[in-house]
Amino acid sequence: MIAEIITIGTEITTGSTLNTNVRYLSQRLLELGIETYYQTSVDDDKSRLTDVINIALNRANLIITTGGLGPTNDDLTKEIVSEALGLELEEDYNMEKKIKTMFYNMNRRMTDNNKKQAKKPKGSNFIENTIGTAPGIFITKGDKKIILLPGPPREMKLMFEKDVVPLIKEDYFIISKSVNTIGIGESSLETRLLEMNLDTENTSVTTFPSEGSVEIKIISRGKNKKLLEKEITEVINIIEDNLKEHIYGYNNTKIEEAIVQLLKEKNYTLGLCESCTGGLISSKITKVPGASQVFDRCIVSYSNDSKMQELNVSEKTLQEYGAVSGETAYEMAKGLMDKSNLDIVLSVTGIAGPDGGTPKKPVGLVYFCVMTKDEHKIIKANFNGNRTLIQTRAAMKALDEIRKILIK
Amino acid sequence: MIAEIITIGTEITTGSTLNTNVRYLSQRLLELGIETYYQTSVDDDKSRLTDVINIALNRANLIITTGGLGPTNDDLTKEIVSEALGLELEEDYNMEKKIKTMFYNMNRRMTDNNKKQAKKPKGSNFIENTIGTAPGIFITKGDKKIILLPGPPREMKLMFEKDVVPLIKEDYFIISKSVNTIGIGESSLETRLLEMNLDTENTSVTTFPSEGSVEIKIISRGKNKKLLEKEITEVINIIEDNLKEHIYGYNNTKIEEAIVQLLKEKNYTLGLCESCTGGLISSKITKVPGASQVFDRCIVSYSNDSKMQELNVSEKTLQEYGAVSGETAYEMAKGLMDKSNLDIVLSVTGIAGPDGGTPKKPVGLVYFCVMTKDEHKIIKANFNGNRTLIQTRAAMKALDEIRKILIK
Repeated sequence: MIAEIITIGTEITTGSTLNTNVRYLSQRLLELGIETYYQTSVDDDKSRLTDVINIALNRANLIITTGGLGPTNDDLTKEIVSEALGLELEEDYNMEKKIKTMFYNMNRRMTDNNKKQAKKPKGSNFIENTIGTAPGIFITKGDKKIILLPGPPREMKLMFEKDVVPLIKEDYFIISKSVNTIGIGESSLETRLLEMNLDTENTSVTTFPSEGSVEIKIISRGKNKKLLEKEITEVINIIEDNLKEHIYGYNNTKIEEAIVQLLKEKNYTLGLCESCTGGLISSKITKVPGASQVFDRCIVSYSNDSKMQELNVSEKTLQEYGAVSGETAYEMAKGLMDKSNLDIVLSVTGIAGPDGGTPKKPVGLVYFCVMTKDEHKIIKANFNGNRTLIQTRAAMKALDEIRKILIK
Repeated sequence: MIAEIITIGTEITTGSTLNTNVRYLSQRLLELGIETYYQTSVDDDKSRLTDVINIALNRANLIITTGGLGPTNDDLTKEIVSEALGLELEEDYNMEKKIKTMFYNMNRRMTDNNKKQAKKPKGSNFIENTIGTAPGIFITKGDKKIILLPGPPREMKLMFEKDVVPLIKEDYFIISKSVNTIGIGESSLETRLLEMNLDTENTSVTTFPSEGSVEIKIISRGKNKKLLEKEITEVINIIEDNLKEHIYGYNNTKIEEAIVQLLKEKNYTLGLCESCTGGLISSKITKVPGASQVFDRCIVSYSNDSKMQELNVSEKTLQEYGAVSGETAYEMAKGLMDKSNLDIVLSVTGIAGPDGGTPKKPVGLVYFCVMTKDEHKIIKANFNGNRTLIQTRAAMKALDEIRKILIK
């Protein structure tokens, strides 16, 4: 079944309202096994709406519209859909009575334009709206189902869940799972995935990058739910065999959530010393509920003074190697390790820009030191982008380094 | 001019990503005097995308697409638009060199699929992407303008504002300025603005809340640019007379930018001690370029141990009053003030939840202490919302308290 969602209203096409209806409907349809291939929004204009409806009737067999069902003159959806389908609009006396009673109960007078809400295309059915005045409409024509819903999200959702779902549910499943990776770019990841030859008739694999991490999404479609689940499990197994070192979680886990979980499992405590990231890593970790069980402290040693005072970095090191150096990163981590009783300490120092870069130490140069009671590792990296991006990428890299120590 | 916006990607049609690009573009086009009549979204499928592009070429004369410009095989926008317009794709050697350099600087290997990003339809121009790898494309054909932008909102917006606006601007002016406020809720602010009677035929005043601050946007539309500018200045003068204590900046200044600026002007240094906000305030301040001139350090003292060790908070205070108390907030600030030579220190300690609340100290209770060499002030506040919201609101309140000290 090919679905198209049409959201109608000038408030949408001018950007005055954020279109959350379309996302809700697409997500719910997918969960019901129906794929939305087209989403269209159009303003309250008769000729353009007619055009959009005709295009949809031509390419989709499930059409859901939201908006344009109200009592005012620019509410045209029902009229235009009826015309496009060649169906007459007829008054429904039960509905008219119902709307009258509703107005009476609200102590408001029913105006003439409210009467048009009691009309429906011949042969169609009303979909009840228990919290608003505009009822929805359900039309079948040939193999096509056309569903008209009001625009207010609360009304639309309630009606969709209660009455539309049973009308469109089919015996077809779409199952998706995702694998979250870090430390590998999207294009390299895609090359590796292609080499694994994962796609089948039912199952496809795609990648979605976000800052510093990439989600691998595996979607399986078909009638045999068990088979789909088996295929997805097999695909995930192959991905795990090939990309083990880059996988930190499943189904939209954040890297900081994975780290807090790993720290809890190992009963380890973590401390940070941040310079160029300015508290960003600490802020990410402390956004995770329960972080206080494993996260002890962070020293944002932004100035050289604070590096010396708080972390015992030697003046000599700062002078000889500079604040942005492997040596300083090491002494920062050691400073915190020496005065605390922590299991893991990570330090980061770099040049986030836009100023402060030199040919030898350009903007984007960042050093990390990750330290346990027994060992330490110094990492040098170069990041691209503006200040915020460099800080974000450095924070993601730092989180990945902490993860690597935890899974060793 | 009739505009159509086409957003491309399976992540949109499955509802996995909320489509904020289309809203942004519609709003901005409207501000530029261009009306969007159609918004279409389609998944990453060649035949459907071709269909959508052909329909748009038929009914609109400004077409903006977002998405599908990346290096992977399901990124098809450029190929399909070229085909629909009958334009050949040709390699651009300068662009290829640029992308190569970028990968080289990032210390990553350029894969073959990255090379396709260096191609463009014959006769078209690249639109530079300074923060991502996929450049945009600008094509004119007859009276039609077709603009292809990448999907990531940050890249798309930057490119739209910098290079697309000048390409599509018309002889009608929409001028907007904004006043940024803090410490007053949106509804109170709106009531105060209504009392000021600011709207005219050309000029309207609206408010946009974001976490902890509210932007007052003044928009003036018309053909006479000078008149519009004069009206806006008059409106801003009235707002300044009435809301002085809440105004911290203009035209989307962030509160942390205003604070860094004020610190620079007064030649003051700042230090922070964060507990429940976990480095969020420090992270906000260090995102501002040049923060290192005025920001010295932050101690994220998350555990009680770290409060005692790093900030000299007494065990007695922690036992008698608890970690979340005015007394602890005071000792945290004093601890940092005593060991440093800073002009302003702010501390924050509270319960971000979801666990840890008690009837006497509920989730959302936060204490602040702002301290200078001469004085200090303890502030108690209760915030609503989930963990992240409480952390954000506490951070905004902290920044407002620092601002108040700076403008005293």
